Amino acid sequence: MRRSIAAEAVGSFFLFATVVGSGIMAERLSDGNVAVALLGNAIATGAMLFALITMLGPISGAHFNPAVTLVMRLRKDLATTTALVFILAQLAGGIAGVWTAHLMFDEPIWQLSTKSRTGVGQWAGEFVATSGLVLTILGTLKTRAHLVPISVSLYIIAAYWFTSSTSFANPAITIARSLSNSFAGIAPVDVAPFIVAQILGALSGLAMAHFIFDLPEKR
Amino acid sequence: MRRSIAAEAVGSFFLFATVVGSGIMAERLSDGNVAVALLGNAIATGAMLFALITMLGPISGAHFNPAVTLVMRLRKDLATTTALVFILAQLAGGIAGVWTAHLMFDEPIWQLSTKSRTGVGQWAGEFVATSGLVLTILGTLKTRAHLVPISVSLYIIAAYWFTSSTSFANPAITIARSLSNSFAGIAPVDVAPFIVAQILGALSGLAMAHFIFDLPEKR
Amino acid sequence: MRRSIAAEAVGSFFLFATVVGSGIMAERLSDGNVAVALLGNAIATGAMLFALITMLGPISGAHFNPAVTLVMRLRKDLATTTALVFILAQLAGGIAGVWTAHLMFDEPIWQLSTKSRTGVGQWAGEFVATSGLVLTILGTLKTRAHLVPISVSLYIIAAYWFTSSTSFANPAITIARSLSNSFAGIAPVDVAPFIVAQILGALSGLAMAHFIFDLPEKR
Amino acid sequence: MRRSIAAEAVGSFFLFATVVGSGIMAERLSDGNVAVALLGNAIATGAMLFALITMLGPISGAHFNPAVTLVMRLRKDLATTTALVFILAQLAGGIAGVWTAHLMFDEPIWQLSTKSRTGVGQWAGEFVATSGLVLTILGTLKTRAHLVPISVSLYIIAAYWFTSSTSFANPAITIARSLSNSFAGIAPVDVAPFIVAQILGALSGLAMAHFIFDLPEKR
Repeated sequence: MRRSIAAEAVGSFFLFATVVGSGIMAERLSDGNVAVALLGNAIATGAMLFALITMLGPISGAHFNPAVTLVMRLRKDLATTTALVFILAQLAGGIAGVWTAHLMFDEPIWQLSTKSRTGVGQWAGEFVATSGLVLTILGTLKTRAHLVPISVSLYIIAAYWFTSSTSFANPAITIARSLSNSFAGIAPVDVAPFIVAQILGALSGLAMAHFIFDLPEKR
Repeated sequence: MRRSIAAEAVGSFFLFATVVGSGIMAERLSDGNVAVALLGNAIATGAMLFALITMLGPISGAHFNPAVTLVMRLRKDLATTTALVFILAQLAGGIAGVWTAHLMFDEPIWQLSTKSRTGVGQWAGEFVATSGLVLTILGTLKTRAHLVPISVSLYIIAAYWFTSSTSFANPAITIARSLSNSFAGIAPVDVAPFIVAQILGALSGLAMAHFIFDLPEKR
Repeated sequence: MRRSIAAEAVGSFFLFATVVGSGIMAERLSDGNVAVALLGNAIATGAMLFALITMLGPISGAHFNPAVTLVMRLRKDLATTTALVFILAQLAGGIAGVWTAHLMFDEPIWQLSTKSRTGVGQWAGEFVATSGLVLTILGTLKTRAHLVPISVSLYIIAAYWFTSSTSFANPAITIARSLSNSFAGIAPVDVAPFIVAQILGALSGLAMAHFIFDLPEKR
Repeated sequence: MRRSIAAEAVGSFFLFATVVGSGIMAERLSDGNVAVALLGNAIATGAMLFALITMLGPISGAHFNPAVTLVMRLRKDLATTTALVFILAQLAGGIAGVWTAHLMFDEPIWQLSTKSRTGVGQWAGEFVATSGLVLTILGTLKTRAHLVPISVSLYIIAAYWFTSSTSFANPAITIARSLSNSFAGIAPVDVAPFIVAQILGALSGLAMAHFIFDLPEKR
C-alpha cells in the first residue's frame, strides 16, 4: 500500500515536471513557432508516460490522474480510502514536480498562471479528450492489456494535437498547471469548468467502454 | 454484432476527429510552416490509429475504412450485409467526428471544403497509398499478426509524407474531409476520382498480397 | 523463390519511393527550413522500413539493400545466384519506386541529380552508417531477433541525423537516388565512392558482429 | 568478458557519435530554430539508444554510462574490476565516437567546448535526470524487463526536453562532450559539478527504486 502510494506520487512528480518543463523548454527555444513547441511538448509527455506506466503499472496501476482513479473506483478496482489517498498523492507529487520544473529552469517557484483557457470549444475538447482516454485504458485492458502503456502514451500525443485545449484530461494536472505561468499554464479561474468537463468525459468513456467491450460487472 | 458496429462508428469518430482536429491545430499554430503542420498532423493521426486498432481490432477488425471493408468482403472475412452496415457506421461516426472537431475549435459545424486536390499525380498518389495500405494489412496479418496496429500506424505516417496527396487512402475519410474547409479538406468535386483511385489501389494491393504472401482462398 | 524475389522488388519499390517522395514533399513544404525537411524525411523512411521489414522479413529476409545481401551471402545464408537475383530485384523495384515518386509529384520521370555529395567526411559517414547497420542487423538477429524491424527502423532514423551524408548505407538506393534531382539526390559522379565506402563499412560491421556476438560459422 | 568490454566500447562509440553528430547536423540545418534542432537531436539519440540497448543488453548490460555501472556495482551485479574496465571502455569508445563525428562533419578532430553550462538550475536538472534514469532502469528491470530498451530510449527523449540541462545524465558523455565545441558541447570547467549532480541523482534513483520496487538485496 505504501509502495503504491509512493508510485502514484513519484509518477505524478515526473509526469507533471515533464509537462511543465518541456513546455518551458519549448517556449524558450521555439522563438514563436508554436507548432514546433507543441510537437516537443507532446512527444516529451508521451515518451515519459510510456516509461512511467510501464514500470509503475504493476505497482499502483499508474493512474497519475484523479479521473482515472474515479473510474477505477466506480469499477470497484480499488477501495474508496485508497482512491482518496491516491488522489492526494497525485496532487502532492505532481505539484512538487511543477515546482521542480520551475527550479530547474531558474523560474520563481511560486507562480499563478494568467493564461486564459475557457469557452465551449475548449470544454468540449476536455470532454472528448478524457472520454477517449478512459475508453483507451478500459478497452485496451480488456483486449490487449500488455499494450496499455504504449496505447495511452500515443493516445495522449494525438490528443495534444486534435483537441482545442491540448488535452489536459486530468484534474490533478489541471490544478498543478494553474501554478505555472508558462506554456502549459491555465488561469486558476478556468480550472473548475475544465475539471467538470473531464469528469463528465470520463463517465462517458466508461459508458462507451461498457457497451463496446462488454466489461464484466464487479461486486 | 451491435458491439462491432459501435466499434467501427466510435473508432471512425476518433480517427476522423484526429485527422481534421490536428489539421486545424497545425494550421493555426504553424504560421505558414507547412512542413511542421504536416509533421504534427501525421504523428497525431498515426498515434491515434495505433490506440484505436489495438483496442478495437479484436472487436470489429478496426477497419474505419470502406476500402478495407471491401477487401475483407472479397476475402470472405465478413458477410455483405455486415460490410454495408460497417461502411454506414464508418461514415456516420466519422462525419460526427469531423463536426466535433469543428465544435472543439469554435468553427462553424457545417462547412464545405474549397481545397482543390486533383490531377494525375494526386490520383497516382491515392492509388499507391491505398495499395500499400492493403498490402501492409494483409501481409502483416499473415506473417506477424500481432504487429498490425503498429505497422498500419507507421505505414500511414510514411504515406502522409511520400504521396503527393498526403494519403487519404480511405473513401469514408475522403467524403468526411470534404465537409471541412481546413488543412485536411478536399473540395467535394474532387472526391469521386480520389475514391476511384483508392478502390483500384486496394484491388492492386489485394492482388500483390495474394501473390507474395500466398494467401489461402476462403469459401 | 519467385515470392521472395517479388518481396525484394516490392519492398524496394515502397522504400525508395518513400525516401525520394518524402524528400520532395519535405523540400516543397519546408520553405528552406532544412532541419524540418530532414525530420520528415527521416521519420517517413524509418516508419516505412518498419512496416516493410515486419511483413516481408519472413518471406525474403527484407534486405532491400545489396550490402546486406552481400553480408548474408558471406554468412552463407543464401546462394550466390539468389543473391544476384535479389540485387537485380532491388535495383529494378527501387528505380521503379523513384520514378513513381516523380509521377506522383508531377515531376519529369527521367532525371539525373546534380547534387554534389563528396569528400572524406561524407565517405567516412557512409562507412560508419553501413557498419552500424550491419552490426545492428546481425547483432539483433542473434540476441533479440523479433526486434529486428524496430531496431533497424530506429537505427536508420538516427543515422539520417548523425552522419554527414544522411546515411544512404545502401548501394541500390545510391544508384536510384542518382536518378532524382531532388532533396534526396546524389550526382552520378559521386555514386561510386559512396558504394565503395558502404561495402567497406558492411565488411567492418560483419567483423565487429562476429567478435561481439560470437556468431557461429556456417558451411 | 572481452566481448562485453567490446560491447561497452562499441555501444558508447555509436551513442556518443550520435549525440554529437546529430547535434552538429541539427545546428547546421536548423538556421537558428533551436527547438527543431533539439527535436532532431533528441529523436536521433533515443532511436540509437534503442537499437544499441536491444542488441548489446544481453552481452554487457548496455550501460554506456559510468553512473549506471556504479549503481549496478552497488547492487552487486558486477565486480569492482569489471566496473572499472567498463568505465574505461565507455570513455575510450565514447571519445572515439565524438572524434569520428568531427571527422564525418569535416570539423577539426581536437576541440574544447566553450559552451557554458552552469548554475543551480542546470545542476538540479542533472540530478533529476539521472535519478529518473536509474529509477526507470531498475524499476523496469523488476516489473517488465523486456521493455527496458524502449523505456530507457523514451525516458531520454523526454529528459532532453524537460530538464534545463537537456539531460546529460552520464559522466562519460559529459567528459566526451567537453571535447566538442558544438551544439552538444560543455565547457571543461563545467564538467565536474555536472558529474557530482549525476552521481547524487543516481544514488537518489537507487534509493527510490529500492523502496517502490522492493528490490531484493544481493550478497
